[in-house]
Amino acid sequence: MATTLPWNFFTENHEITCSIILSTIVAFLTYLVIPSFFPALLNAGLKGKDLGKLEKPVIPEAVGVICGMAYLVTLTLFVPIEFDVISQWLVSYLGGLLAICWMILLGFLDDVLNLKWRHKLWIPTIASLPLLIVHYMYIERTIVVLPPMPDFFENIVVQIVSNFIPGFVYSNTVDLGLLFYIYIGMLAVFCTNSINIYAGINGLEVGQSLVIAGSIITFNLAHLNVVKVSAYMHLSLHFMIPFFMISLVLFSYNKYPAEVFVGDTFCYFAGMTFAVVGIIGHMSKTLLLFFIPQIFNFLFSVPQLFKIVNCPRHRLPKLNTETGLMENSYTDKFKLSGGGLRGMLRKIIVTVFRVTGLIKVREAGEDMVECTNFTLINLALIWLGPTNEKNLARFLIVLQIVASLLAFGIRSDGYGLAGLIYQK
Amino acid sequence: MATTLPWNFFTENHEITCSIILSTIVAFLTYLVIPSFFPALLNAGLKGKDLGKLEKPVIPEAVGVICGMAYLVTLTLFVPIEFDVISQWLVSYLGGLLAICWMILLGFLDDVLNLKWRHKLWIPTIASLPLLIVHYMYIERTIVVLPPMPDFFENIVVQIVSNFIPGFVYSNTVDLGLLFYIYIGMLAVFCTNSINIYAGINGLEVGQSLVIAGSIITFNLAHLNVVKVSAYMHLSLHFMIPFFMISLVLFSYNKYPAEVFVGDTFCYFAGMTFAVVGIIGHMSKTLLLFFIPQIFNFLFSVPQLFKIVNCPRHRLPKLNTETGLMENSYTDKFKLSGGGLRGMLRKIIVTVFRVTGLIKVREAGEDMVECTNFTLINLALIWLGPTNEKNLARFLIVLQIVASLLAFGIRSDGYGLAGLIYQK
Repeated sequence: MATTLPWNFFTENHEITCSIILSTIVAFLTYLVIPSFFPALLNAGLKGKDLGKLEKPVIPEAVGVICGMAYLVTLTLFVPIEFDVISQWLVSYLGGLLAICWMILLGFLDDVLNLKWRHKLWIPTIASLPLLIVHYMYIERTIVVLPPMPDFFENIVVQIVSNFIPGFVYSNTVDLGLLFYIYIGMLAVFCTNSINIYAGINGLEVGQSLVIAGSIITFNLAHLNVVKVSAYMHLSLHFMIPFFMISLVLFSYNKYPAEVFVGDTFCYFAGMTFAVVGIIGHMSKTLLLFFIPQIFNFLFSVPQLFKIVNCPRHRLPKLNTETGLMENSYTDKFKLSGGGLRGMLRKIIVTVFRVTGLIKVREAGEDMVECTNFTLINLALIWLGPTNEKNLARFLIVLQIVASLLAFGIRSDGYGLAGLIYQK
Repeated sequence: MATTLPWNFFTENHEITCSIILSTIVAFLTYLVIPSFFPALLNAGLKGKDLGKLEKPVIPEAVGVICGMAYLVTLTLFVPIEFDVISQWLVSYLGGLLAICWMILLGFLDDVLNLKWRHKLWIPTIASLPLLIVHYMYIERTIVVLPPMPDFFENIVVQIVSNFIPGFVYSNTVDLGLLFYIYIGMLAVFCTNSINIYAGINGLEVGQSLVIAGSIITFNLAHLNVVKVSAYMHLSLHFMIPFFMISLVLFSYNKYPAEVFVGDTFCYFAGMTFAVVGIIGHMSKTLLLFFIPQIFNFLFSVPQLFKIVNCPRHRLPKLNTETGLMENSYTDKFKLSGGGLRGMLRKIIVTVFRVTGLIKVREAGEDMVECTNFTLINLALIWLGPTNEKNLARFLIVLQIVASLLAFGIRSDGYGLAGLIYQK
C-alpha cells in the first residue's frame, strides 16, 4: 500500500537510511564551517564582483571546493559504515570517487590559475578513464538497444544492407565497441562543461544541479525494486544523496542575494558526479534526458562558441542600474550580409532564430545589426521582459523542473514516475 | 648470471618496461610544460621569496600540483595499456590513486588557503581510509610477527600472563586488530608531515623523496622474484617508477638555485604516495626504515613542536648576508632555570642535547640562553660550520642515501641488497 511505503522503505533499506543520516550530519557541519573559510578565500584572491547587484559587492569565490571535500569525506566514511553493501561494488565506487576527486582538483586549479580551454577539455576525458575501465571490467558488452522498427521498414533496410554485407540480419541491438567508450568519455566532458556555460546568475549552477540530482534520486527510487537494475539504482543513490544534501547547503549560501560564488570547482564537481552516476549506474541515456535545458543551451550557444556569430567575452544579462532589473545583453554590432560560407551561415542562423523567437535583433545603423546573446538565460529574458535576478533564477529553476517532468514522461515506459507511486 | 640480467629483465617484465617508457614520456612533457604555468602561478599569488639568496628573488610556488596532475595522468593511462596486469589489483590500484589524488587536492588547498593545523591532521587520516578498506578486504588478518623469545624468558612471560588470562599460550604473532588500522592511518599522517617539516632548502624536499623512492624501487627489484611478495613488489613499482621520473623533473627546477618552490602540494603528494606503497605493498616497516632521517628530525623537533623549548616561527638556517653562507638559526632567548614540570623538562632536554652535541647553546645575558633550533638542518650546520646552500642540500641528500644504505643493511635478512646482486 502506498501510504505505508515510507516507513517500510527506511527499515528495509537501512543503507539508504544510513546514507541520508550521514549526509545530513556532514551537510550540517559543512553549513557551519563554510563561513570560517571566507577570510582565507578572500585573502587568496579567490573573490569576485557580483555584477548583478547595484553596489557590485565582492564575495568569496570557489566555495564549491569546500563542498567537494565534504562530499569526498562523506562517501569515504560511508564505506566502513556500510561495508557489506559497498564491498560488492567497491571497484565502481572507488573508480567513481577517483574521477570526482580528480575533477574537484581540476576545478579548483581552474579557479586559482584560470586554465586554458585546451587543458579543460582533455583532462575530464582522462579523469573519466577509471570509469571506462570499471565499465569495461564489469560489462564488457558495449551493446546499445535500438528502437524496434516496423516490419515493412525492417524488410527494406535488410534488403538494402544485405546487398553490401552478405548474410546481414537486422537485430535491434548494436555493439558500439570503441565508439561506446568515446561516448562515455564525451559524457563526462559534456556534463562538466554544459553546467559551466549555463551559469552566471545567483543560485543557477547549484539550483539546476539540485533539480537534476533530485530527478535522478526520484528515478532511482522508482526503479529500486526492478530486479535487473536494482543494484545500479542503489549505487547511484549512494552518490546522489550526499551530493543533494551538500548542494542544498551550498544553495543556501549561493541563492539570491549570493553570499558566495560556487566557482568552476562546483560545476566540474557536479558535472562529474552526474557523469559517474550515468556511467556506473548504467543510465546515461536517462541522465541526458534530465539535461534537456543544458543540451538546449549548449546547442543554442554553438553558433557563438564556434565564432559564426559574434561572441562577446561575457554573455550574461545586463543589470539596468536605473530599474535594478536584468535585461538582455547584446552581441557587438556585425554585418548581417557578410560574404563567404560563414557569412551565409550567419545570415541563415540569425534569420531562423529571429523567426522562431529565440533571439531579438535590432538595427545598429550603417547596415549593421546586433542581437541578443545565444543563451537560455537571454531567451528567458525575451519571454519574461526585464526581470529582477531573483525571479529570473527562480524561473530558470522551475524550467529545469518542468524539463525533468517532461523527461519522466518520455521515460515512463511502464515503470517511470508512475512506478514510484503505484508499484509495490 | 648477473651480467645478463638487465636485458632479460626488461623483456620478461614487459609491464615494468612499459611503466618506465610511459613515465619517461610524461616526465619529458611535464618538463616542457612546467614553465608555461609560471605566469598563471605568479598571477594567482602562488609565489614566495627565496630567503636563502642575497637578492631574495620571488619565484613560483606550489609547482608540485602540476607534477601531481602529471602523475595521476600517468597512472591512469597505464591501466588500459597494461590492463591484464593491473586488473588483478584494480581495487588496490584505484584505492591508492584515490588517496594520492585526494592528498594532492588537500596540499594545493593548503598552498592556496594556508589551512589550519587541525585540518591538516585529520584529513590525511580520512584520505587514507580507502587504503584501510582495501587492506581490510584483501588481508583481513592484522597479524604482526614478533621476534622470537628465548625459551626461559617465554616461560616466565606465559606464567605471569596466564595468571590474568587463563589458558594463555605465547605465540610469536599478535593480532593487532583495530590498532593496526590506527597504525596505518597514522603512517599516512606521518609520511606527509615528516617530509613537510624536513624542508626549506632548495632541492631538499624533492631530493629526499627521490632517495626514498629510489630505495623503494631497489628494494622492490631485489624482491621481485620472491614468490610470496612478488605481486606486492610489482604493484609498488607501478606507483614508484612514475613518481621517481616526475620528481626528477621537479628536482631539475627546484635544485639550487631554485627556479620554483614545490609547495606543500609536493610534500603531501610524496608522503601519501610513500604511505600508499607501504600499505598496499605490505612493506610499511621497511618503508619506515627509509624514513630514518625524517623520523630523527621529527623526534628531534618534538620539544619545540610541543612548545617545551621556545619555538620561533621559522626554524630554517639563516643566511649571513656578508659571507653568503648559511648559518645556524637560534631560538628566542629563554630562562634555562624555569620552574615547574615544563621548566625541569626543558632543562633536562637542553642539557642532554648540548652534551650529545645535537645543539649549540649560547649565553644571552641576564641568566638567559638561546640555542640552535632542533632540526636536522641545523644539526648539519653544527657539523659542517657555515656552508653555502648548495653544499648543505647536497650533504643532507647524501645523508639520506647513507641512511638508506643503513636501512638495507638492517633489512638484509638473506635477500636484502645482497639479493639484488646475487639472486637469480
